[in-house]
Amino acid sequence: MIYITRKEHFNAAHKLFNPSWSEEQNNAVFGKCANKNWHGHNYELFVTVKGKINPETGFVVNLKDLSTLIRKEVCEVLDHKNLNLDVENMPIMPSTENVAIFIWNILAPKIQAMSATLHCIKLYETDSNYVEYFGE
Amino acid sequence: MIYITRKEHFNAAHKLFNPSWSEEQNNAVFGKCANKNWHGHNYELFVTVKGKINPETGFVVNLKDLSTLIRKEVCEVLDHKNLNLDVENMPIMPSTENVAIFIWNILAPKIQAMSATLHCIKLYETDSNYVEYFGE
Amino acid sequence: MIYITRKEHFNAAHKLFNPSWSEEQNNAVFGKCANKNWHGHNYELFVTVKGKINPETGFVVNLKDLSTLIRKEVCEVLDHKNLNLDVENMPIMPSTENVAIFIWNILAPKIQAMSATLHCIKLYETDSNYVEYFGE
Amino acid sequence: MIYITRKEHFNAAHKLFNPSWSEEQNNAVFGKCANKNWHGHNYELFVTVKGKINPETGFVVNLKDLSTLIRKEVCEVLDHKNLNLDVENMPIMPSTENVAIFIWNILAPKIQAMSATLHCIKLYETDSNYVEYFGE
Amino acid sequence: MIYITRKEHFNAAHKLFNPSWSEEQNNAVFGKCANKNWHGHNYELFVTVKGKINPETGFVVNLKDLSTLIRKEVCEVLDHKNLNLDVENMPIMPSTENVAIFIWNILAPKIQAMSATLHCIKLYETDSNYVEYFGE
Amino acid sequence: MIYITRKEHFNAAHKLFNPSWSEEQNNAVFGKCANKNWHGHNYELFVTVKGKINPETGFVVNLKDLSTLIRKEVCEVLDHKNLNLDVENMPIMPSTENVAIFIWNILAPKIQAMSATLHCIKLYETDSNYVEYFGE
Repeated sequence: MIYITRKEHFNAAHKLFNPSWSEEQNNAVFGKCANKNWHGHNYELFVTVKGKINPETGFVVNLKDLSTLIRKEVCEVLDHKNLNLDVENMPIMPSTENVAIFIWNILAPKIQAMSATLHCIKLYETDSNYVEYFGE
Repeated sequence: MIYITRKEHFNAAHKLFNPSWSEEQNNAVFGKCANKNWHGHNYELFVTVKGKINPETGFVVNLKDLSTLIRKEVCEVLDHKNLNLDVENMPIMPSTENVAIFIWNILAPKIQAMSATLHCIKLYETDSNYVEYFGE
Repeated sequence: MIYITRKEHFNAAHKLFNPSWSEEQNNAVFGKCANKNWHGHNYELFVTVKGKINPETGFVVNLKDLSTLIRKEVCEVLDHKNLNLDVENMPIMPSTENVAIFIWNILAPKIQAMSATLHCIKLYETDSNYVEYFGE
Repeated sequence: MIYITRKEHFNAAHKLFNPSWSEEQNNAVFGKCANKNWHGHNYELFVTVKGKINPETGFVVNLKDLSTLIRKEVCEVLDHKNLNLDVENMPIMPSTENVAIFIWNILAPKIQAMSATLHCIKLYETDSNYVEYFGE
Repeated sequence: MIYITRKEHFNAAHKLFNPSWSEEQNNAVFGKCANKNWHGHNYELFVTVKGKINPETGFVVNLKDLSTLIRKEVCEVLDHKNLNLDVENMPIMPSTENVAIFIWNILAPKIQAMSATLHCIKLYETDSNYVEYFGE
Repeated sequence: MIYITRKEHFNAAHKLFNPSWSEEQNNAVFGKCANKNWHGHNYELFVTVKGKINPETGFVVNLKDLSTLIRKEVCEVLDHKNLNLDVENMPIMPSTENVAIFIWNILAPKIQAMSATLHCIKLYETDSNYVEYFGE
């Protein structure tokens, strides 16, 4: 068993604002992240896949295929988008945690179809904050 | 003469959309950056100041003061904001070029007042793109 | 279960010198790190917390609160300090290993009080060396 | 139990080309990596070791010794070499996966001899791709 | 006048070997870089362009166009290639200095045709070494 | 004319404390940097040299020689040292500005002796602060 990771990125706008709360409560909990006119980030996405090495290629998965998959299924959906407005099935709170799980749910079955297993979604919102999700 | 640089950052939403153009023309020129619902970035800002060393401190400027100045005058204005909607006097096209000049115009006189000279505003929009402005 | 990490930093002086050994033995084992007049580092600290997502916020923990906690309980204690002289309860050998465990012991109960669980302290002493401690 | 990691690096040429396949099949699977005249990378190697802290030193292992070991046993073998031509016992496909396992097999017994345990070989081929191997 | 920089990259093999010298002299001057079976690097390329801002776009140049130009004219020529064997018109010594000038000579006229001026080619061979060329 | 840069590093302790001032004044100006028991940093040093390319080597200077020079003349003097106590001829205020000039004065004549010209000393004290000195 060996683990291989591919980095991709996307840039998006979002806000953290719970519509069932007052504006005061939103500001108290989310601070500047509640700005009603949005803010945004350069997200860095690390997708870790595990599996056995194919002796003919030396690969767990072909990184060209993995990169193409992530760009088509994740980056095209999220890049240069508003995570609150433009993305179907995104949870109402597009926190880094929820975006990471959203990405896991897209990629896990498609990586299974490549004869490998998704191990981890690691998502940086800024250089100082990141989330890791292992599917459970 | 010696040069000292302080890095700060801010996260903001923006879009590149020329309102005097058709949507087709905007998409042709700005591509995904024209998304009407915004996108965003983690901006990294490098402010370079030049001057003579004060022999009593060993400093051109006190970096605590320079950092406080940049945070108060620039980051509070731009951080977690929508550059198109939330920022007074921002040019209608908040390209990295125009944001860098906007920051220069705020900081140059205030750094002069610290007995130093603003030399360069270097602004990263992403890890792959940055602008430098030297005031002329 | 999801994992979230916050990066903070502190700059400190230290030396590695075992007072029960001769100077020769200290130099043989610790090399330049035994310099009696100290040296220092820019430490980068990654605190990883795990827990369940609060559906109202999308958060495991509020990163503002986590950042405030780390800065108050760890950075104020270690930043711009001499790890051998200025820090109560620091082990006599302030190796990266021992500093990481010192930080774990401060943060683990306080993160429990935020309804989350401290998962890992990752501490970089230089760009080329880091330690990870998982509490056991 | 605590984990400590040392980063080293080496620069090498390689190609991915399965000699039992046609040139077309090699190009279809490996793309530009199959270029018969080679290409190359700056590899970054992270070696993670685990063990108990020696109370006299505060160390799991002495990083000077660990660094010397990695440089002598791995970097001297791989640095400024052609991974396909110059390295004894390298698998015929010098993919990042196979190079990581090659390094594990060199270092695991030698780290055991330092009274610690090799935990992970993490090998970056580029800034966007890395492999992790845990020995099983 | 404002300056904008775009980062691209390519991975290549090369060696430094002066064919008019003895092998001893090559080894004395170039050390491991003279390995006859090649070695390689992940090159990072920063292309800085200067010009006036187009008020309709806020751009000196459209970064999409600049990126496309660099990828087509430089990266396709150098990426996953052997700089000594595969690249027409490359000087016989593919040092970082000579590769940077080679890239300048390709890009300078094509950037002029975009109504901007090439200012600097900055080329990293490793994280620790880079060259800058300003065209004179 | 072409410019080549080599990165090296050193780790050191220092404090900023003007002995002709009161402790109150030192604390007001230097803040935590005045801690009497020292603090420290991982310094990153970028040495930029300019010159003409030697057509036989493709080099401005041989980077092996430049690296050896910097390590011997600068890093051995500053690495794992206390900049206030251990370094002959260091100004009494070892600010980043003064350390950069100190390094310039060591290296400029020795680089001249390599038939090249020292262009810039760039010294990072932290990831957020750096100084550049061009010799005048």
